[in-house]
Amino acid sequence: MNLDTLYSELTLETKAKLVLMVLDGLGDLATNAQGRVTPLEAARTPNLDALVADGCAQGRMIPVAPGITPGSGPGHLGLFGYDPLEFQVGRGVIEALGLGVDLKAGDVAARANFCTLDAQGVVTDRRAGRIDTPVCERLCSLLAQKMKKIGDVDVLIKAGKGHRFVVVFRGPGMEGPLTDADPHREGLPIPAAKPVAPDAAKARKTAEVVAQFYRQALPLLAKEQPANGFLMRGIAHQPDIPLFQNRYRLKPACLAVYPMYKGLAQLVGMTKIEGPQTIAEQFERYLAEYDRYDFFFIHYKYTDMYGEDGNFPAKQRAIEEFDAALPILLRKRPDVLAITGDHSTPCALKGHSWHPQPVLLHSPYSGDDKLERFTETGANLGSLGVFEAKYLLRYMQANARMFDKFGA
Amino acid sequence: MNLDTLYSELTLETKAKLVLMVLDGLGDLATNAQGRVTPLEAARTPNLDALVADGCAQGRMIPVAPGITPGSGPGHLGLFGYDPLEFQVGRGVIEALGLGVDLKAGDVAARANFCTLDAQGVVTDRRAGRIDTPVCERLCSLLAQKMKKIGDVDVLIKAGKGHRFVVVFRGPGMEGPLTDADPHREGLPIPAAKPVAPDAAKARKTAEVVAQFYRQALPLLAKEQPANGFLMRGIAHQPDIPLFQNRYRLKPACLAVYPMYKGLAQLVGMTKIEGPQTIAEQFERYLAEYDRYDFFFIHYKYTDMYGEDGNFPAKQRAIEEFDAALPILLRKRPDVLAITGDHSTPCALKGHSWHPQPVLLHSPYSGDDKLERFTETGANLGSLGVFEAKYLLRYMQANARMFDKFGA
Repeated sequence: MNLDTLYSELTLETKAKLVLMVLDGLGDLATNAQGRVTPLEAARTPNLDALVADGCAQGRMIPVAPGITPGSGPGHLGLFGYDPLEFQVGRGVIEALGLGVDLKAGDVAARANFCTLDAQGVVTDRRAGRIDTPVCERLCSLLAQKMKKIGDVDVLIKAGKGHRFVVVFRGPGMEGPLTDADPHREGLPIPAAKPVAPDAAKARKTAEVVAQFYRQALPLLAKEQPANGFLMRGIAHQPDIPLFQNRYRLKPACLAVYPMYKGLAQLVGMTKIEGPQTIAEQFERYLAEYDRYDFFFIHYKYTDMYGEDGNFPAKQRAIEEFDAALPILLRKRPDVLAITGDHSTPCALKGHSWHPQPVLLHSPYSGDDKLERFTETGANLGSLGVFEAKYLLRYMQANARMFDKFGA
Repeated sequence: MNLDTLYSELTLETKAKLVLMVLDGLGDLATNAQGRVTPLEAARTPNLDALVADGCAQGRMIPVAPGITPGSGPGHLGLFGYDPLEFQVGRGVIEALGLGVDLKAGDVAARANFCTLDAQGVVTDRRAGRIDTPVCERLCSLLAQKMKKIGDVDVLIKAGKGHRFVVVFRGPGMEGPLTDADPHREGLPIPAAKPVAPDAAKARKTAEVVAQFYRQALPLLAKEQPANGFLMRGIAHQPDIPLFQNRYRLKPACLAVYPMYKGLAQLVGMTKIEGPQTIAEQFERYLAEYDRYDFFFIHYKYTDMYGEDGNFPAKQRAIEEFDAALPILLRKRPDVLAITGDHSTPCALKGHSWHPQPVLLHSPYSGDDKLERFTETGANLGSLGVFEAKYLLRYMQANARMFDKFGA
């Protein structure tokens, strides 16, 4: 029997409130250079400690599979309870979501960037001398004005940072993935984007639309220097992901500050609550919206950001800032509270990693692992063990008493 | 998406050196009779302790699946990163490898042993009175002299211990598996070996070759007593296993003393480095070969051997002998070092077992579980948790920074 089907069949309606608190990139490594502690271990966290003392289950979560380092997309899909290997989201879609494009199911999105072409159409600089963002914005406006439609397909163009932008194609019967319209090195012309699966009729339509887009757009840039061409990568449609609310019978809301995480929440049908900028404001807003939703995804970016910088003290302070705000959230204590990361971002690696992130689960039924704190080393000893992140949401549902008994 | 395909797509070339140190049958059980310690816990291991203090991740590995006790074949295939349930190696192949036969892909190998037949061809003693090895060797020479070829198929015969030998058929269009030419009890004639899958044309050829082998070989033994017949089991071809180097982009070498482990390494395309007999010599040779390979599989047999004997003090001493030699290996510290067993061989069981073996992973990115020693009980507290052995190689690759990020 398919496990998701079983979960679905056993799911009961309840009045429970569930909160998934994501400290992005929370997990870290204890190294000798850092005095054998992680930022979470070094941080002063009296409010987290009190939560742990109240009784929590802890464990560590494999974001995707052993040794695999996830991007934010697969990392969050796992936290939302979707198998990141089953539901793959193209880079174009992630990039578009990151730029705040309101994607719809079936939209085909591409990461694009301006490049320099010689008279023969050969790519001489894949990044067009890394043009400034205002130049990129001007060129995107130029393209957007002239390129509103290709046949029955609407075209959306949105500038990003530097030479980067995204193109979204919205029309009937479209599908990805396509191969990249990018030679991936200089000295070659731009190859045509082709269906990855040659027999996919919808992808063939998409390939024709992309080819037509190139035919019309390149002449518009012919007199520009150095950005007289563009490359397109990760061309794929927004996958058809089962809606969060249907899958879990929970009405979900997203309290995130950064567009990428709002976009990922939107991908599974969460309502984006806009406005709050700080974690304290996010928690205040949770209090205000408490009655309107069953499930809150609250995203905190700074643990990841400082991990990427390799800035241990700043990552530690970000955790302490989160901890200081935590009592606001707990004024209306949710029935189930999970606190974790979408992956580890160890300061020693200055980037995402594969190391299982620690997770804390608090509910009247979570049990008590009798640990003193919430840390990586402590979480190794927890009752949840080491498990795949996609199961966290199921544990949250179980703690909310949302599952009927299986079998007699 | 298939996980092996994903790993393959994400794999990057690096200059990293990886060492997989296998203490065969390392894992053990603490029993009251043994003073509630295992040989690994009882052993004095100052060099392992220092490695742990430098920062290691620990965990325990399920060799195949919960409760499954593996032979050396599945045990090592798992360590080499191949799912032992997906890549099954026939017992004939394992036996041939164990006797040092230089098998090639497609070779069909059978475990054979001499038996006693009555005048009607009925098996009266399945082991021919357990004849001595020299008798077995004489009979194998006799057969080998007369039975060099069957049609276009070369025949190789190699004596083993006591009544045991192996037969290898090497020719075009051959395939296993066949049913056993063995009634599995006395009082019955030798059944014909038949294709397990009746429609397999290549297996039908193999069955004909085996039948022809019987027709020609039995008359040669007619006057021998008690070994006037033979049985054949586990008749199968060497499976087509993806080469280690292609699968992991690592150039592998094997430093093993016993033929079985060299054979298993050869099965996945590792280069066998011959010569060293002691663990100290193996480590010295690793230093000498350091620049020529990316991956070293170093095999130490004695932990398993003394476990099979149920000899706790000898198993403890074997671990201490390994520990004493360890500083030689660490003169050229690999980027990633894993130390583990292929399974447990508890002294209390005098044999292989299903108990997860402890594993230690050391690299600049392994993190530090802050344990004091490498032991079974300690490994229970490690960040790697309890996981399937086939993922160890993926963790080693991750620690060598060989995987690109998955998704944006």
